[in-house]
Amino acid sequence: MNRATPNKFKAVASFAVVSMCVACTSFTDLGSTMSLAPKVILIIGDGMDDQQITIGRNYLVGHNGRLIVDDLPYRGSIQVQTLAEDDPSVPVYVGDSASGATAIATGVATSEGRIGTTANSDLDVANLMELADAAGFGTGIVTTSSVTDASPASFMAHIEYRYCDTPDAMERENTRMPQDSTSCGQDRVANGGLGSVVEQVATSKMDIVLGGGSDKFTVTVDGEPGTTVLEQAKSNGYTVIQHLADLDRLPAENRVLGLFSPGHLPVRSRGVNGAKAEYIDRVGDKVVWPEPFACEANPEFIGMPTLAAMTKAAIGRLNSDAGFMLMVEAASIDKEAHYWRPCGSIGEMEQLNEAVQVALDYAKSHPETLIIVTSDHGQSAHIIPEVSNLALQEFASRGRFARLLTPEGGIMGINYATNDSPLWEDHSGVQVPLYASGPGVEDLPRFLKQSDIFHIAATHLGLGVGQQHSDSRK
Amino acid sequence: MNRATPNKFKAVASFAVVSMCVACTSFTDLGSTMSLAPKVILIIGDGMDDQQITIGRNYLVGHNGRLIVDDLPYRGSIQVQTLAEDDPSVPVYVGDSASGATAIATGVATSEGRIGTTANSDLDVANLMELADAAGFGTGIVTTSSVTDASPASFMAHIEYRYCDTPDAMERENTRMPQDSTSCGQDRVANGGLGSVVEQVATSKMDIVLGGGSDKFTVTVDGEPGTTVLEQAKSNGYTVIQHLADLDRLPAENRVLGLFSPGHLPVRSRGVNGAKAEYIDRVGDKVVWPEPFACEANPEFIGMPTLAAMTKAAIGRLNSDAGFMLMVEAASIDKEAHYWRPCGSIGEMEQLNEAVQVALDYAKSHPETLIIVTSDHGQSAHIIPEVSNLALQEFASRGRFARLLTPEGGIMGINYATNDSPLWEDHSGVQVPLYASGPGVEDLPRFLKQSDIFHIAATHLGLGVGQQHSDSRK
Repeated sequence: MNRATPNKFKAVASFAVVSMCVACTSFTDLGSTMSLAPKVILIIGDGMDDQQITIGRNYLVGHNGRLIVDDLPYRGSIQVQTLAEDDPSVPVYVGDSASGATAIATGVATSEGRIGTTANSDLDVANLMELADAAGFGTGIVTTSSVTDASPASFMAHIEYRYCDTPDAMERENTRMPQDSTSCGQDRVANGGLGSVVEQVATSKMDIVLGGGSDKFTVTVDGEPGTTVLEQAKSNGYTVIQHLADLDRLPAENRVLGLFSPGHLPVRSRGVNGAKAEYIDRVGDKVVWPEPFACEANPEFIGMPTLAAMTKAAIGRLNSDAGFMLMVEAASIDKEAHYWRPCGSIGEMEQLNEAVQVALDYAKSHPETLIIVTSDHGQSAHIIPEVSNLALQEFASRGRFARLLTPEGGIMGINYATNDSPLWEDHSGVQVPLYASGPGVEDLPRFLKQSDIFHIAATHLGLGVGQQHSDSRK
Repeated sequence: MNRATPNKFKAVASFAVVSMCVACTSFTDLGSTMSLAPKVILIIGDGMDDQQITIGRNYLVGHNGRLIVDDLPYRGSIQVQTLAEDDPSVPVYVGDSASGATAIATGVATSEGRIGTTANSDLDVANLMELADAAGFGTGIVTTSSVTDASPASFMAHIEYRYCDTPDAMERENTRMPQDSTSCGQDRVANGGLGSVVEQVATSKMDIVLGGGSDKFTVTVDGEPGTTVLEQAKSNGYTVIQHLADLDRLPAENRVLGLFSPGHLPVRSRGVNGAKAEYIDRVGDKVVWPEPFACEANPEFIGMPTLAAMTKAAIGRLNSDAGFMLMVEAASIDKEAHYWRPCGSIGEMEQLNEAVQVALDYAKSHPETLIIVTSDHGQSAHIIPEVSNLALQEFASRGRFARLLTPEGGIMGINYATNDSPLWEDHSGVQVPLYASGPGVEDLPRFLKQSDIFHIAATHLGLGVGQQHSDSRK
């Protein structure tokens, strides 16, 4: 980020408020009408578009079944927002978790790869957690990814580029996305910046952060030889937990940092024996349709906390008269779709579904809770016929294809065909779902932009937008 | 179809009512609480999934813009429904316009290719138009396809297979869909059936039918040498119109059959000089990203009525104290996506958007009007990065790809990669949108099945489900 002058900050604020707040009017009085301190539980399915929800439903509860989200009282659509880094007046129609989560967390659209900073001008923009903390609310983040990954990072950090996630990473040029070839030099502590993502997580003021990524915390703090980032986090008041059983005995006072895996948490489900979508074979002119497979429990998931268990623990830690802002992410709907693994995505959809149920259970006795369920961007998976409709059988997708045996006895064809790269699939710019439950959701417009979610949450908590600039970030 | 005994009919009815009517309860009293005769305008975007809506929005009104449907007061999701022909207890996760529109029109899920008949048992099931007509309502169908195409046919006909659309077609075996290799022999008039689709349209009791397909009506009626189907339609009381200007002088009494094109109506928009998505070239290891193109007016559309003009004419014809049931279809969102032509789909999305505005304008002075906007199934188009996110530029989709220059100065990447066939792309089984406006829509559940739409419309019109079996079809 750059050190912004007050005037520069004001310009950003006024953009966020004037241009992007479709939902503000209908939500203006929500915070103040609640007798108890308001709570927000924002649940993000990373890559959870309508395809992923349908895949999850068909597999988990059958084509006649209903997911928990299906019965939430509000459903709308969200236009994803991404801007060109070179010229932020030009839209980019497909974003990533960094731009998507930053729009949700800060109310300001940005370019791909950016975390809590504006496109091109590189200004820091305050996020919901900082604003909620400054206003005295409890704050929590729960994710199945590394806690330094783009989505959680967008709620804790401000940096030019998501992959500048450790001091080490900032010593090399990051070129994973061609448009963002950077080593985030201006963000280094030595240069007066806030440091890498993991350092910003370690020095954050969150009450509770649960997920994976312990490996990231073993590195040395920039400019402090001999001090690991984990030690930095502890100095900042974090009690670090690393085992499932620790969730039952969280410290009542200290900040909590739960790191249950070296990297992202392993997913719950996988294809039998690791089966995933593959390129379809042809023998001469004939398509050899791949053998169908089912999903099975992923052995690597043993000993991992479920998203529901982490969500429950976080709510338990945050539940107080102060109210709270909690973000919960099922991160690997996206990651597994990137790698052609439908069963992995389905397991994460199941985790999200269970976490929504935990939130609803809490809201039953705490009706001042606003539950929001949405996604940061669309993904590549696409339900198509398990054997093509075309009479002539020599035709089939050129992408990776899975034929998934569903528990109800059907076969679901799932196609991944956005890219022939051996690395991963691309995202989609499709509008994504918004579900909600809680006070006032019936008055929400049915179509919103990603940045509106920031305003809905901020308004429910009664965070004046003026507060967006009163937090203590330097 | 088969001649069903009353008992057989009852079994189908009870399935439709008991198993599939999620929305009935909340809609029970709508019809009776209206002081004026209720009206339903059901608008179907063929293949209009969330991708197509987003593509249309980004191109037509920009990424910060709003389509008319975006501002309707209700938005939900619809699970598409298709069953296996061999064993209807087994779900098929991707359907077609026949199965999709039949579920919407009759409240009964069926197998691919079937029109108004049940999977495997081949029973006729009454549709909304027949029930509305029997109850004294006006009935109308407006479409940009041939009026014999699967979606309109599902509201007028009962036949084993959609491509048995003329007596001639029923003399050859239809094998376009491998699972439905049939010549619909039992449906031939000579065999005691209702005849081909076009004959059933000609003998239907609709008040107004507007679309394309005049070529289908030039064939000879089965068993009546010397009589064309067009003459058959006239004998049945249809005044036939074929020119745009005729829409302004519809006969007040006669049924109206408007056939404005030999086949489907030409679409409004096309890529500049006919540009469409194409396979991406590679030179050595390098991807040659295709040149971006914009959309332009399709010269073939000159002289054609817009969907809005046809909708307005149909509403004008049907507007009376009797109330009405009108189905309006933007048919070629789907057809153009099948053929890799994003501009064609966008033009049809624009047509649908305008037709929704016509319906809203009418409902302003007729608040007893229920407007429903939905889709029969998902399609193949997929918004992906216009140049892949991957740093190494040699990777790209193996499907057909278009880079669309948007009027707001962006480039939208649209991928078609469900099938390498030279014939067409496959459909998708994704859940599709449901939008609604009018009395009681705020009480609709946010997730429904396709067959629920039948019940919502029938309930608004006060059509007792018992009536489903009292219509006069033999």
